[in-house]
Amino acid sequence: MKQALFVGRFQPFHNGHLDAIKRILEEEDRVVIVIGSAEENNEPANPFTAGERFQMIEAALGAEGVNRDRYVIIPVRNVKNFMLWTAHVDQYIPPIYKVYTGSQIVRELYESYGRYEIAHLDFNFEVHGTSVREKMLADDPSWRDDVHPEVVNLIEKWKGVERLKMIA
Amino acid sequence: MKQALFVGRFQPFHNGHLDAIKRILEEEDRVVIVIGSAEENNEPANPFTAGERFQMIEAALGAEGVNRDRYVIIPVRNVKNFMLWTAHVDQYIPPIYKVYTGSQIVRELYESYGRYEIAHLDFNFEVHGTSVREKMLADDPSWRDDVHPEVVNLIEKWKGVERLKMIA
Amino acid sequence: MKQALFVGRFQPFHNGHLDAIKRILEEEDRVVIVIGSAEENNEPANPFTAGERFQMIEAALGAEGVNRDRYVIIPVRNVKNFMLWTAHVDQYIPPIYKVYTGSQIVRELYESYGRYEIAHLDFNFEVHGTSVREKMLADDPSWRDDVHPEVVNLIEKWKGVERLKMIA
Amino acid sequence: MKQALFVGRFQPFHNGHLDAIKRILEEEDRVVIVIGSAEENNEPANPFTAGERFQMIEAALGAEGVNRDRYVIIPVRNVKNFMLWTAHVDQYIPPIYKVYTGSQIVRELYESYGRYEIAHLDFNFEVHGTSVREKMLADDPSWRDDVHPEVVNLIEKWKGVERLKMIA
Amino acid sequence: MKQALFVGRFQPFHNGHLDAIKRILEEEDRVVIVIGSAEENNEPANPFTAGERFQMIEAALGAEGVNRDRYVIIPVRNVKNFMLWTAHVDQYIPPIYKVYTGSQIVRELYESYGRYEIAHLDFNFEVHGTSVREKMLADDPSWRDDVHPEVVNLIEKWKGVERLKMIA
Amino acid sequence: MKQALFVGRFQPFHNGHLDAIKRILEEEDRVVIVIGSAEENNEPANPFTAGERFQMIEAALGAEGVNRDRYVIIPVRNVKNFMLWTAHVDQYIPPIYKVYTGSQIVRELYESYGRYEIAHLDFNFEVHGTSVREKMLADDPSWRDDVHPEVVNLIEKWKGVERLKMIA
Repeated sequence: MKQALFVGRFQPFHNGHLDAIKRILEEEDRVVIVIGSAEENNEPANPFTAGERFQMIEAALGAEGVNRDRYVIIPVRNVKNFMLWTAHVDQYIPPIYKVYTGSQIVRELYESYGRYEIAHLDFNFEVHGTSVREKMLADDPSWRDDVHPEVVNLIEKWKGVERLKMIA
Repeated sequence: MKQALFVGRFQPFHNGHLDAIKRILEEEDRVVIVIGSAEENNEPANPFTAGERFQMIEAALGAEGVNRDRYVIIPVRNVKNFMLWTAHVDQYIPPIYKVYTGSQIVRELYESYGRYEIAHLDFNFEVHGTSVREKMLADDPSWRDDVHPEVVNLIEKWKGVERLKMIA
Repeated sequence: MKQALFVGRFQPFHNGHLDAIKRILEEEDRVVIVIGSAEENNEPANPFTAGERFQMIEAALGAEGVNRDRYVIIPVRNVKNFMLWTAHVDQYIPPIYKVYTGSQIVRELYESYGRYEIAHLDFNFEVHGTSVREKMLADDPSWRDDVHPEVVNLIEKWKGVERLKMIA
Repeated sequence: MKQALFVGRFQPFHNGHLDAIKRILEEEDRVVIVIGSAEENNEPANPFTAGERFQMIEAALGAEGVNRDRYVIIPVRNVKNFMLWTAHVDQYIPPIYKVYTGSQIVRELYESYGRYEIAHLDFNFEVHGTSVREKMLADDPSWRDDVHPEVVNLIEKWKGVERLKMIA
Repeated sequence: MKQALFVGRFQPFHNGHLDAIKRILEEEDRVVIVIGSAEENNEPANPFTAGERFQMIEAALGAEGVNRDRYVIIPVRNVKNFMLWTAHVDQYIPPIYKVYTGSQIVRELYESYGRYEIAHLDFNFEVHGTSVREKMLADDPSWRDDVHPEVVNLIEKWKGVERLKMIA
Repeated sequence: MKQALFVGRFQPFHNGHLDAIKRILEEEDRVVIVIGSAEENNEPANPFTAGERFQMIEAALGAEGVNRDRYVIIPVRNVKNFMLWTAHVDQYIPPIYKVYTGSQIVRELYESYGRYEIAHLDFNFEVHGTSVREKMLADDPSWRDDVHPEVVNLIEKWKGVERLKMIA
């Protein structure tokens, strides 16, 4: 089974992430989705817990018909030290052979690590977690267009926008 | 979907764990398997990494025909403070309503936590991780009877017994 | 004995805090004053050590005639994880039945925790630690009006304003 | 006000501790009682939380007629590094001029620190936390003679002996 | 042998640092150079690893003809608590009798610590790590004038300016 | 310049370590001596601080005529996670091309890391830190034969044997 890695903080899980995972699954048997900064929560840049991000990913992928055996989701806390970060992630995951990333820093870290193939993802969707959170804070309803309807439902159920405003 | 929690260190994943999960799945829609002490590895009491334990669980459940959408596996590092432990686990997992455990301490922690139903598991198999590791160290080949054949294969591939002897 | 919780960082202990504690003591037998972020010190937002904050509280309450058996002061370090914070505080304190707070976040954390009554404090005094520190940095002498004269004495003895300017 | 330091883990608070505090109060205005290893709990050597130890100390001293303004109790987590330990405690406490201790290691640490007078305590009572816990584990009822009756009451209320046996 | 301490983060090692060390060596037998915040790296304020900073210092001092037995370099991670910082550094270094510093905070910490002589350094060079990094980010080539040519070589070899831009 | 790594805890620095370094220097330009578990001190298995171990190494190598530009000494705290350990050390050191070790675990970690040549050291001297400390505790004066006379002098100056007995 060919497994590849995709890492994000998923604050929240948005359409750029969703599109990336779908495209990875066109090439690979299974994607190992690592939820980064797993223990950060209820902070302006990290409003959702790892458990909530887990639910967002499952809800969106499920609604899109992605079979549950095509992905695993593994939350990994941050170590705040780039020299240790790739080895830290490695202790948590099943064997992968390739890393997909749209981030220059992640690509350079894995190039320096030297253990996996690296594939560049040029995101189709112009969505970033930062801008989604900024829209939420600015009462710009278009944040709902940036995430899957199932993710909208979860965020509204959790009163996520109110939470973000309170902690901002 | 009714989801229940099952926590273990899975050093290694043995037939007692496997039997417990099967019995939980007779009652529940999905089991949330938390790999405890996820960052402990290469120690006498914790020889395997979280990633390796992830593979053991998937290999055994897969060979037993358990569908991949009946369980999720979430590695969680230890916090070494029982007063914080249940809240620490909660930040990592999707919503559960019930905890299955054979451990008196885990049961009392969740009773004190007061958020979930608790079900007592009386293990059918007389297997403990400690005794499996002791057999490995003593060159007692009967450790192979305590774990699923797929787990035997993985441990042999990783030279797990040699590793355990080296670090003991 | 009816004990209630009041949490603050007390950087510094100001008249809003003092007023809140007096009002709590009109209702309760004893107030458990938790000094939050106890290990933060000599930082712009946290200039004073836990030991210094302890002295400010005792000096002000003592001068106001609050009997020493009406309050205890317990310093608690920060855990930087709201999911763990209430359980973390609980391991440090004697039994309480109620939480007094003027903070929306603290109120929501304890509502989610579900173990204690919660009382909303609408501060009489328009004082915030942030504004007191800003006045100190701006050489605005009116910061002395925001804290008890005994607290002024302590801060001057410690050269607290000079310290704050140096670390800012 | 002459304040002196007395440090212990108080697992549990026993008659040796109680006697030491009484004798210190014959000499000093107030004793600063530091609960060491404050975040250790539910472990064989540290069965009780800081909050429970706080209650034991207050219950025993109160029953013995020690006025509440003669002592403060400050819980301090362990740093596991003797080179930092005295400075770590200092950030948590009001000003002291003297340290009372019956421990050779604590005495040497404060001698090396060089900031306070040091007084040797030769305990009247032959009681140690370790032996009290061993009696509890061995069902030797004489542990009740080693602690104050108010502490017995608390430990029984918390089912402390059962807890200790479970975690041992 | 008279040994004195000089502490910096050396992000990067610049001509102000170099000049300070040369002047210290006019007075002392050996300088103990502590690389502070040793585990911070690949961050905007801390782009270089401790190992890279070690190399910058050796390269510059070597090219300037400073004999290798006139200095030692000891990397020390940050503890983010000024109350513990001097004791934390002390556990890492050989015996010193004096501290040279141009920083008001460092001087006050060691005055409070009270164990060493303190010498004020008024830097000849108007160079600060912050301004060097700002020049790098602004593509202002004059950063090369602020550091020794050997340091320029190392930073270019490591593509340090590109790294800084990426992480900024 | 060919630089090679040699890692030890040096509790204390004994003749086996000394012999190993001399033999490494027959092959290499410079040895990078990493003091492992740098922040452990005043514990039974780690009686000496990193600063003291630094002095032992310098004293012995100096007395043996090893030039100061043939070695550097870098203290590195423990991370207690073998998966991260090699990357953790790497952030602290100048570039090496080879690792010398007599430890099976260290060899396997660096084989797995895959970045450096590895050379096996079969120690000439039958000395281990553990046995030296056991001799000290047992008042067996032959520990003096296991370490260099300069190291004996330092340990006696620090009352190291008395310290070890006190903390044991």
